[in-house]
Amino acid sequence: LKKEALKYAKELEKEGNEVFISASPCFGACDIALEEAKKVEAEKIIHFGHSKLIDIKEIEVEYVEPKIEIEKELLNQLITEASQKIRFKKIGLVTNVSHISQLKEIKELFKRNGKEIFTANGERTKKEAQILGCDVSAATKIEKEVEAFVYFGGGLFHPLGALILTNKPFFVIDPFQRKIDEITNLREKYKKISNAKISIASQAKTFGILVSTKPGQFNLEKALKIKEDLKKIGKEGFLLVANTFDFNEISNFEVDAFINTACPRIGIEEGERIKNKPILSVEEFYFLFKLLNSKDS
Amino acid sequence: LKKEALKYAKELEKEGNEVFISASPCFGACDIALEEAKKVEAEKIIHFGHSKLIDIKEIEVEYVEPKIEIEKELLNQLITEASQKIRFKKIGLVTNVSHISQLKEIKELFKRNGKEIFTANGERTKKEAQILGCDVSAATKIEKEVEAFVYFGGGLFHPLGALILTNKPFFVIDPFQRKIDEITNLREKYKKISNAKISIASQAKTFGILVSTKPGQFNLEKALKIKEDLKKIGKEGFLLVANTFDFNEISNFEVDAFINTACPRIGIEEGERIKNKPILSVEEFYFLFKLLNSKDS
Repeated sequence: LKKEALKYAKELEKEGNEVFISASPCFGACDIALEEAKKVEAEKIIHFGHSKLIDIKEIEVEYVEPKIEIEKELLNQLITEASQKIRFKKIGLVTNVSHISQLKEIKELFKRNGKEIFTANGERTKKEAQILGCDVSAATKIEKEVEAFVYFGGGLFHPLGALILTNKPFFVIDPFQRKIDEITNLREKYKKISNAKISIASQAKTFGILVSTKPGQFNLEKALKIKEDLKKIGKEGFLLVANTFDFNEISNFEVDAFINTACPRIGIEEGERIKNKPILSVEEFYFLFKLLNSKDS
Repeated sequence: LKKEALKYAKELEKEGNEVFISASPCFGACDIALEEAKKVEAEKIIHFGHSKLIDIKEIEVEYVEPKIEIEKELLNQLITEASQKIRFKKIGLVTNVSHISQLKEIKELFKRNGKEIFTANGERTKKEAQILGCDVSAATKIEKEVEAFVYFGGGLFHPLGALILTNKPFFVIDPFQRKIDEITNLREKYKKISNAKISIASQAKTFGILVSTKPGQFNLEKALKIKEDLKKIGKEGFLLVANTFDFNEISNFEVDAFINTACPRIGIEEGERIKNKPILSVEEFYFLFKLLNSKDS
């Protein structure tokens, strides 16, 4: 995407615009370079690679959605193979924004192979079957109706969240690596990690509550509530504010554990970086809260 | 400092304040956590570890300056030893904010050991003899009058900038490691690196111009001027905006070299991280500009 940005910048400059490129890392549709845009007094933000997720009031945002067209023949081959491999009939289909343009075709191919396809629209996501790191409701909403889930797309970033919050067999069709994998077993691994984190955190006395300033990740109310709730169970909370969390930086804080109110991926993907200092999700914290609160009373 | 922050936060909370701790890395007195403070609607920023450098209009900033008292006996011992080691009489003295409280004592000890001490007030620095990564004028201003420089303090962060921009013998008294070092030879090393960077950049066609959004590092005018000047020598410039520059991130941009308008330390300390893509300081760029411009005309 960084390569594209330079090309795109050149074109916009030819039209007489002054173009600034954000050189900050970008972690999703929630991560609009608003601070950078404001500082240089930009009139418009062009955001590459994601579809619209949040309303930005201060400045116009144009989204350049990614669209990856998988060749028809390969698509046909992958869906046919997947249909043979997946022994279930009722399938919940989820994907990311890049493949939405081929969603109809994918559903059609599954049907032709004898499958019944279920999809939903998520809470924060705007497109049918679309899931995000922070919104896998396009999967959870249809869980009761389906026998298994299929995620169509590359990488584990998107399906991992959906896997953790559901309980049905889970398959991934990766059109880039051209393979079909079952990842159901991974669920057990993440549940074990989660339990270990909660167990360590139950001994913690002080907690750092992570609050991101990113437009779509700012959850101050939630953080303040957690701080209050920590008091109720005799623990101490410190509000730690940053745009992007630098894990070398926060590991310097002398707290025993962290609670993450920013991107839910932080606890899953980055959590293992801080040894013996678990990063709990909000849900994991409240699980612990109930546990300790019921013990006390 | 992160440990201090938690202690300090507790005290402020006892007085009835809601305290937020910035978890962003902080690179100096220019790096006030303004974005974080605005986002949580803080009424005041308390900034640890630096003295005031820039005016922040949006919000009150209280500076908690570091003050490190070196034991009298050790101080006496170090200055006596340094006076014997440094064969020059006229000495330019520079230090960082932590040792300002002992400046008078240090000067006195040098005089007692037969030295003539020169100091100046810098352009951006507020205290006598104080130097910063971005302001070593407390050294350059007195260069003509002195035979050698002495930096009193720990680390190479501060003296390196002064070393590079001066030409007299340079000594460091490190009270933490309890030793006196001559670093004059390092100057040659950095000049060689600088020449190599300029030489590589002379072949570059496209440049990324780094613009930091940090309150005290924002130099948009300078960046826009550089972009214009690049055109004059047939090169292309892209404005890259971020708060903290992530070097993994910016190395993804397909430009041949960078020009840094943010903290001058970036080019010196981080420059070697990006292989074959030099980061020029503004001064280095204009050296190259003159070189190429005179060739053309």
